Amino acid sequence: MATSAPQPAHDHTIRDTETGGLSADEFKAAFRQHPSGIAVITADAGSGPVAMTASSVFSVSADPPVLVFSVSAMSSAAPTILTADTLVVNMLSADNLDLALLGAKSGVDRFADTTLWDRLDTGEPYFVNASVWIRGRVVDRMLIGDSTVVAVHALNSSVPNDVATAQPLVYHNRTWYRLGPESRITT
Amino acid sequence: MATSAPQPAHDHTIRDTETGGLSADEFKAAFRQHPSGIAVITADAGSGPVAMTASSVFSVSADPPVLVFSVSAMSSAAPTILTADTLVVNMLSADNLDLALLGAKSGVDRFADTTLWDRLDTGEPYFVNASVWIRGRVVDRMLIGDSTVVAVHALNSSVPNDVATAQPLVYHNRTWYRLGPESRITT
Repeated sequence: MATSAPQPAHDHTIRDTETGGLSADEFKAAFRQHPSGIAVITADAGSGPVAMTASSVFSVSADPPVLVFSVSAMSSAAPTILTADTLVVNMLSADNLDLALLGAKSGVDRFADTTLWDRLDTGEPYFVNASVWIRGRVVDRMLIGDSTVVAVHALNSSVPNDVATAQPLVYHNRTWYRLGPESRITT
Repeated sequence: MATSAPQPAHDHTIRDTETGGLSADEFKAAFRQHPSGIAVITADAGSGPVAMTASSVFSVSADPPVLVFSVSAMSSAAPTILTADTLVVNMLSADNLDLALLGAKSGVDRFADTTLWDRLDTGEPYFVNASVWIRGRVVDRMLIGDSTVVAVHALNSSVPNDVATAQPLVYHNRTWYRLGPESRITT
């Protein structure tokens, strides 16, 4: 159904392409203004470990404990992540930037450095220096275009004891940020 | 299926409750380490405007342009958001903290201040000072426990022209942050 264009807000560039929706570039421009935490998803469905950096992890429900993330069919890790029963969400602090870059780099063996990762007793690969990890079981998937939103039931976690001092890694407008106390807003 | 416990990482508290998964408190403790951008979802399915602050918005696919967010059945806005055909995702900058607090506050009329919001020509309510907004059509829903992951096809957007200077709002460990240049990591 075609509808009329929305009215302009102040000092904004209005994109209006109702029929087909926003172009990929227009959509990306809007999301550059939306920061996110960063995680690396690791899994092994039987053909070796894979890792993929994701800016799309969020908590859907605490009871039951379920998180979601999305995976693009373009990712080299997609075939494994989309067939694994269980996987690990490695949440990154600013000190883990190397892991974020590793999990986003094409054409490299992301497990070549064996000091960076290990396996849980349950078999899943994980990065030993990740600030926090959650191991979970895939419980649902929603296909959207060439991407899939994966829902994961959280089974185990590892959270640092010195949690108050951790400075998380944030990705925003194609730049990395360290979220420290100097950025806190006093309300 | 019960499996053995994962091995401990260094200086971490391991939560292991394989049978039922993590408790709500354990799950929340892990996600306190995962920062997020903030948006307010606005919609009107015919019974008046609603608004809901969300820390769960992410881009799934740029082509087609699709985003997702989650809504808890506990939210007063849920009945409208889950029946609306179209809605607006208002992405917030640090200067929009008042909107984030408004959309999260219980028992108030979130539209009492008529200077804060307006309607698009297509009818949806939106907050006129939001840093960025995207109007879209709901194309899919995934029910998880008492929450629903909503997939939205982006139709229109409004992005500030002075985009490079915007400082987004970030929520982390129950605290608000302003993501400014002082937090940038030089790689």
